[in-house]
Amino acid sequence: MIQPKAVVLLSGGLDSATCLAIARQEGFACYALSFAYGQRHRVELECARRIAEAAAVARHVVINIDLRQWGGSALTDDIPVPEGGAGTGIPVTYVPARNTIFLSFATGWAEVLGARDIFIGVNSLDYSGYPDCRPEFIKAFAECARLGTKAVDEGWHFNIHAPLQYLKKADIIRRGLELGVDYRLTHSCYNPAPDGRACGHCDSCLLRHQGFVDAGVPDPTPYTDAP
Amino acid sequence: MIQPKAVVLLSGGLDSATCLAIARQEGFACYALSFAYGQRHRVELECARRIAEAAAVARHVVINIDLRQWGGSALTDDIPVPEGGAGTGIPVTYVPARNTIFLSFATGWAEVLGARDIFIGVNSLDYSGYPDCRPEFIKAFAECARLGTKAVDEGWHFNIHAPLQYLKKADIIRRGLELGVDYRLTHSCYNPAPDGRACGHCDSCLLRHQGFVDAGVPDPTPYTDAP
Repeated sequence: MIQPKAVVLLSGGLDSATCLAIARQEGFACYALSFAYGQRHRVELECARRIAEAAAVARHVVINIDLRQWGGSALTDDIPVPEGGAGTGIPVTYVPARNTIFLSFATGWAEVLGARDIFIGVNSLDYSGYPDCRPEFIKAFAECARLGTKAVDEGWHFNIHAPLQYLKKADIIRRGLELGVDYRLTHSCYNPAPDGRACGHCDSCLLRHQGFVDAGVPDPTPYTDAP
Repeated sequence: MIQPKAVVLLSGGLDSATCLAIARQEGFACYALSFAYGQRHRVELECARRIAEAAAVARHVVINIDLRQWGGSALTDDIPVPEGGAGTGIPVTYVPARNTIFLSFATGWAEVLGARDIFIGVNSLDYSGYPDCRPEFIKAFAECARLGTKAVDEGWHFNIHAPLQYLKKADIIRRGLELGVDYRLTHSCYNPAPDGRACGHCDSCLLRHQGFVDAGVPDPTPYTDAP
């Protein structure tokens, strides 16, 4: 039996590692796609590499793109990363059009592979401040991908799977643990130490840690200063 | 008076140079965006640089992205470029999801700049074989860009201008000449010589040359072997 192929966006974080495990469990041969996009830290790409290896993906590709050329985000620019819990509105860690860019590359690779399925670990409960994590956006992108590729002429469409869309962080963690995800391989911190340990204080660390607390399981994350 | 800003996709070709001239004429401060995407030739990027300079753009950014990692096109892979006129269906020179990728980056930059206008030189008459050059795709992308950025929360939308959409090549050339475009600075050939001269035989050379013939003006293109 030939496995259908899927392109899976893999950041190296908790969500995308879980998303990859779900894609595998659904029977897809997974093609993992990561981006080096001028992040302050490369530790998450190293995590992506180890997660991809542990999940025995068919192939893992890292695309270099330099979003620092125009900045505009605390993740790619010299804007300080906020600490101390979520604010309101779109966070400064939002990278303009990031998921549109990532999904565009995923679509191109899927077209080349003959894959009709793309997985992305977006979540609208924990990250409602990011417009490109919402279901309306994912749906609009799927239509754009159909119309912008040979799918439109051949009469099929891309399935953009967002299996974490409506899960709370604790539910994502429980699901991942059921599927055997080793969360020690994953990285979430916006501001890690040079040795790769998480800061324990940025929004992403706080959200991640609370997820483990709410799931009632130990948080395996190495922190420089535990939350 | 403050000029509104626009991001203009600039490949270095005849169409995008004309599109840039139209954006200028419409009163926009132009931010030109080019891509080094594993093309076989860098000559078109040098053309883009010279066109941007001649048009006195506010800024010209070249983004490096390596689409050769997955190939799938005669422009990025080891598939031969066809010669001798247009065939039927989607050409092998189609780069999967290229315009989706390019427009995604343009959207990200526009969001950072505070620009609501993006110009792209797609054309559905001469390139009907490319799905991502059609008006349905451009419309779907605009909706995707709105939903994937702060536009959706702030109640505005991006205008994706495709001023060449319904023009024939000869009309594009006439319009560009009226606006003072120097077509010697532009490059269209899929398969140029090392010195930058156009081959005179690929689909792109034939289409371009026919445009000058139909417009009734001399073709200023340096060819190794004139069509």
